[in-house]
Amino acid sequence: MDFPTWMSAVQARTEAVLERVLPAATTAPTRLHEAMRYAALGGGKRVRPLLCHAAGEMFGADPIQLDLVACAVELVHVYSLVHDDLPCMDDDVLRRGRPTCHVEFGEATALLAGDAMQTLAFQTLAEHGGTTQMVTLLAHAAGSRGMAGGQAIDLAAVGKTLSVQELEFMHIHKTGALIRAAVLLGAHTGHADKDAVVRLGHFAGRAGLLFQVVDDVLDAEANTVTLGKTAGKDAAQNKPTYVSLLGATKAKQMAADLRAEAKAALATFGDPARRLLELTDYIVERKY
Amino acid sequence: MDFPTWMSAVQARTEAVLERVLPAATTAPTRLHEAMRYAALGGGKRVRPLLCHAAGEMFGADPIQLDLVACAVELVHVYSLVHDDLPCMDDDVLRRGRPTCHVEFGEATALLAGDAMQTLAFQTLAEHGGTTQMVTLLAHAAGSRGMAGGQAIDLAAVGKTLSVQELEFMHIHKTGALIRAAVLLGAHTGHADKDAVVRLGHFAGRAGLLFQVVDDVLDAEANTVTLGKTAGKDAAQNKPTYVSLLGATKAKQMAADLRAEAKAALATFGDPARRLLELTDYIVERKY
Repeated sequence: MDFPTWMSAVQARTEAVLERVLPAATTAPTRLHEAMRYAALGGGKRVRPLLCHAAGEMFGADPIQLDLVACAVELVHVYSLVHDDLPCMDDDVLRRGRPTCHVEFGEATALLAGDAMQTLAFQTLAEHGGTTQMVTLLAHAAGSRGMAGGQAIDLAAVGKTLSVQELEFMHIHKTGALIRAAVLLGAHTGHADKDAVVRLGHFAGRAGLLFQVVDDVLDAEANTVTLGKTAGKDAAQNKPTYVSLLGATKAKQMAADLRAEAKAALATFGDPARRLLELTDYIVERKY
Repeated sequence: MDFPTWMSAVQARTEAVLERVLPAATTAPTRLHEAMRYAALGGGKRVRPLLCHAAGEMFGADPIQLDLVACAVELVHVYSLVHDDLPCMDDDVLRRGRPTCHVEFGEATALLAGDAMQTLAFQTLAEHGGTTQMVTLLAHAAGSRGMAGGQAIDLAAVGKTLSVQELEFMHIHKTGALIRAAVLLGAHTGHADKDAVVRLGHFAGRAGLLFQVVDDVLDAEANTVTLGKTAGKDAAQNKPTYVSLLGATKAKQMAADLRAEAKAALATFGDPARRLLELTDYIVERKY
């Protein structure tokens, strides 16, 4: 199977599992369930599920179980987007080419939809073959010393000048932690051994940072229609980014270096790491 | 040990475990961790931990493990209070006799603090001896078909006339689900058998509703200083309550009936159910 076909297949599976795991819009409370489905379904690159599947396939993980683990990670990601877009946070009106959840459903319902999607993430993982170790791993990645912590650092950074090291610290938490969890949870689903998990952790660290550097370049250079979210937002909100700190040329060089490092971390795995290599290229070459 | 001594001991243990499980205020991101500690520590009746311990002790559960399970339930409760107090929800400024979390730390930090406390709840349960079955139970109680769903129904009910049946449906979700989870997770920690769990579930259903009816009476009759939160809020916000629907006299009669039913559900357990019986009385007789 070539990479685009594989990617489309995983994206379609992700959509189908989310569709099944999310309560029906006809189940009470209907408006809350509508809002959850609006936010989670019908869009998204599904980068985390792709990474989860790619890592899991390396170790022969059961695809059905991988679907559910990947779905749990994606639900954490989607909940964080809904809360991040709220007026008290980034106050954004556009996401995946559509009005954000609170614009469509009101702030209170969006808040609860985010809350309930976080809960559903842990429920999905615990109910469908995840171990308590995997629940702990996802919680560490999502919590105050992971993703939510990164968002708090992001908040505190608005209008400030950060060093490249401080910016990296922020992104390791804000985006890196969950990307790392996606890779490692995939590997755990396939019962990867400890040594493999350590090496994949190193790959995931580089890939997570790479994802963010490319995101910063896209935010500065692409337009709103292509991105499906408001372009130029970082500069408008006076947020430090790799582009604002290093300039576009150096940021692109940094991306090239991270891409090489990420790939190098996979070298010892040989051919089974093919999808992760392809995904690394995809992360750099994507247009949105 | 008499009941007040037992209750104080469990409350002190709960405070100590929360203190230990919550990241230090000196750990980055410090402001987020300060906000989490502000919201979770130094107050609260700890009704859910009390119920969890009382149920666990009936089946000889390890007290150290009960502390952590009870702490997980309390973290879900505290996160829900922080989000419930936000301007887009109940917009409340007073909680446990102090400014609410968003008044003290700003909306964005309060939002993230709530998010991170929910995560920490699942992390605590999964990391410290809870089973995946227990994680699933807590998630069901907290999610869109439990507590978060109840809050959505509550939102939709503002300004409407509900029947007593509709009000009960709302409260079974909003408060009942987590109270039930507190009791059942305590019982699971003590490896209670299936039959005992069913009987305790019946008790918990009555106790949860009882808690809410008494809450409605207190909101209508007590003052803000005694409650430590804004009194008369339900009427001011035009929210349906048992008092607005039935009048105070009938609401109190309903509480008396529920108290009797809750106690009757414990009859077959005999003396080991003593703490749950005492807690039932406490729920009715409390002043805040």
